[in-house]
Amino acid sequence: MRVSELSRASGVPVATIKFYLREGLLPRGETTSPNQARYDERHLRRLRLIRALVEVGSLPIAVVKDVLAAVDDPGTDLHRMLGTTLYAVTGVPEDDGAGAGKTDDELDELVTAMGWSVSPRAPAPAGARTVLMRMRELGTMPSRETLHAWGEAADRAAQGDMLAVQRAGDRASVVETALVGTVLGDTLLAALRRMAQESHSAQLLRPEPPAARSGG
Amino acid sequence: MRVSELSRASGVPVATIKFYLREGLLPRGETTSPNQARYDERHLRRLRLIRALVEVGSLPIAVVKDVLAAVDDPGTDLHRMLGTTLYAVTGVPEDDGAGAGKTDDELDELVTAMGWSVSPRAPAPAGARTVLMRMRELGTMPSRETLHAWGEAADRAAQGDMLAVQRAGDRASVVETALVGTVLGDTLLAALRRMAQESHSAQLLRPEPPAARSGG
Repeated sequence: MRVSELSRASGVPVATIKFYLREGLLPRGETTSPNQARYDERHLRRLRLIRALVEVGSLPIAVVKDVLAAVDDPGTDLHRMLGTTLYAVTGVPEDDGAGAGKTDDELDELVTAMGWSVSPRAPAPAGARTVLMRMRELGTMPSRETLHAWGEAADRAAQGDMLAVQRAGDRASVVETALVGTVLGDTLLAALRRMAQESHSAQLLRPEPPAARSGG
Repeated sequence: MRVSELSRASGVPVATIKFYLREGLLPRGETTSPNQARYDERHLRRLRLIRALVEVGSLPIAVVKDVLAAVDDPGTDLHRMLGTTLYAVTGVPEDDGAGAGKTDDELDELVTAMGWSVSPRAPAPAGARTVLMRMRELGTMPSRETLHAWGEAADRAAQGDMLAVQRAGDRASVVETALVGTVLGDTLLAALRRMAQESHSAQLLRPEPPAARSGG
């Protein structure tokens, strides 16, 4: 297909496609005349992945390149490819280091209890630590029981993520599934958590209606 | 204590305290002279709650007033008080309604499977629906198995939330715990999910090291 057809099929404007071609994110099409090139399904597929990385992952072009390089390099195993992708979309909030000691202990205890193995290079633990420090500062540090329930929730979510990744087909789909499932999935999980909260709150905290109290 | 001492103890600037007094968020202190009032622990406590609502919940002053009214009205039971708080911090993304039919079915099926009871007024289902529609549009709609794993994760997180709420003391603490645990908790859960993902990914997707393969 021509670049105009590739644009229609992908929903990505021609100017953006040309930018991706110049940046080397999208491979050149087969040249059919000095001013025309032909594109195929692989280009469409790659555009979909770039769109997910840029629009959903909000990744800068340089980082998109790193992820695509990992996708294209068969020497990078799936675990490392996923790591490159998910580290890239994991923001780390600022951490002034105050009061880190006790929070580190609590996080370490949770990680050990969950049996998680996390690289020292991983950005997520610093994010978790910063949130816990802020909770402590606000006087609302979660108890060990609440923290463990949240750890189990995170573990169950990750099991769902791995199911999705294992069903994905090629390497590009693995990255796309993991990226969309993680970034949009955080928002979905937050919404589902609100629904579960409401349901549990109704059971635990709502006074019984008068009819039920009188045995009706 | 004087307003300057209240400011020091709470970390809230005097000008902000005066603004809260004018807006009626903070009750006036006991007048000790025409230009001075005395404040006590209840004012400090209330300031902490306002700070959580404004700084963590990012709630506008009008909504803070609604939540405080629910806290102060003993006729509002805990479930309704929590609902007022958590509905207020639940953003609903824009939803153009396209393709809602199939997504509604999938969400309804999940809610039924989880045994959740959610009010038609709740903002969270619209948020969940919008994310699912976007996932479908991107060609990365989660399977039923993944969706159920996420539902179970949300349910486990909410159990942790309810444990925290039930340990909180007075009504102000219930609101503060639920608000901080939900808003900052979303970020914490996302970080813990990344850690769990890495751990599961290493187990499922990392090639065995050569030593293990050769039986060492």
